[in-house]
Amino acid sequence: MKTSLGAKTLASPTPTWVVCAYDAAGKPNGATIAWGGICCSKPPCLAISLRAATYTHGCITASKAFTVNVPRQDQAVIADYFGMASGRDTDKFAAAGVSAGKSDLVSAPYLQEFPLVFECALTHVVELGLHTQFVGEIKDVKADPEILTDGKIDMEKLGTVLYSPATRQYFGLGPLLGAGFSIGNAYVK
Amino acid sequence: MKTSLGAKTLASPTPTWVVCAYDAAGKPNGATIAWGGICCSKPPCLAISLRAATYTHGCITASKAFTVNVPRQDQAVIADYFGMASGRDTDKFAAAGVSAGKSDLVSAPYLQEFPLVFECALTHVVELGLHTQFVGEIKDVKADPEILTDGKIDMEKLGTVLYSPATRQYFGLGPLLGAGFSIGNAYVK
Repeated sequence: MKTSLGAKTLASPTPTWVVCAYDAAGKPNGATIAWGGICCSKPPCLAISLRAATYTHGCITASKAFTVNVPRQDQAVIADYFGMASGRDTDKFAAAGVSAGKSDLVSAPYLQEFPLVFECALTHVVELGLHTQFVGEIKDVKADPEILTDGKIDMEKLGTVLYSPATRQYFGLGPLLGAGFSIGNAYVK
Repeated sequence: MKTSLGAKTLASPTPTWVVCAYDAAGKPNGATIAWGGICCSKPPCLAISLRAATYTHGCITASKAFTVNVPRQDQAVIADYFGMASGRDTDKFAAAGVSAGKSDLVSAPYLQEFPLVFECALTHVVELGLHTQFVGEIKDVKADPEILTDGKIDMEKLGTVLYSPATRQYFGLGPLLGAGFSIGNAYVK
């Protein structure tokens, strides 16, 4: 018998992504989000959700582009900070001691110290209620060589940071459990 | 200097969610997805993406409801199987030795053996290309008592299963890294 927890966003866990965009003055801005994920394979797209009240919401609406920046485990503190302060009154990059690069594919900055970046062009805006969902077509994925093995992302090197909204906690990536489209063969007749 | 990996859906990692819906004959169906996430806080909503060619796509389009079922680490094999077979020609529940319960809030089945279930009513359909995104309003979250501490989800008890599309691997949840809206105070002046 399951226990009812109510109509809540108790995902388990979510990504920890820092979304970067330029404001109207061309200043790089970044905000950490937990509401997001890949949403289409062809064209490759991801979705992020932001409240209209956030500074980054206005930046993306105007610039029609953003990057998604994925932290290493030891960068959870930076990601948490980017979710606490507002770009309206703070230069978060300077405060956290990180630097903004400029995407050469879309009109958006990226967080140079984070090891994995998705460069996205805005394609859909879906008003859902408190949050607006922005869908971005992934124009390129760029990675630091340190997280690659044979030219591909190595999840154990990336580590990354996961968030639990239910408990407001960050977690690292755990042990390898098995190969996809493979271990399920146990049930194929 | 970052390395370009191309325009790909290399998310890192994604959820491993089994989406359940009834087909036109009332038969429970389930399919594992990696493209999904929470997308709005009020009303609480999550998004999942499915290819139009999948059996579950048709089920959700017709029934306008679905559940999202979250596995424990030791259920990764079941989740992988539900992503390999098709409900068109297989009773996946019987093959994997699991059972379908009936949601009392939406017209959808759920996977009784999985510890965490989101019951969702379809609110938006967004055609993105190869995938259709279905947004569902979360009507309730139901959990097995075994994953709760003081009535709340305990991420270390849930464990859960994460997927890496880049490498086609499943991972468990890793170590606690810190508290959200807290560790970032290190950079607040």
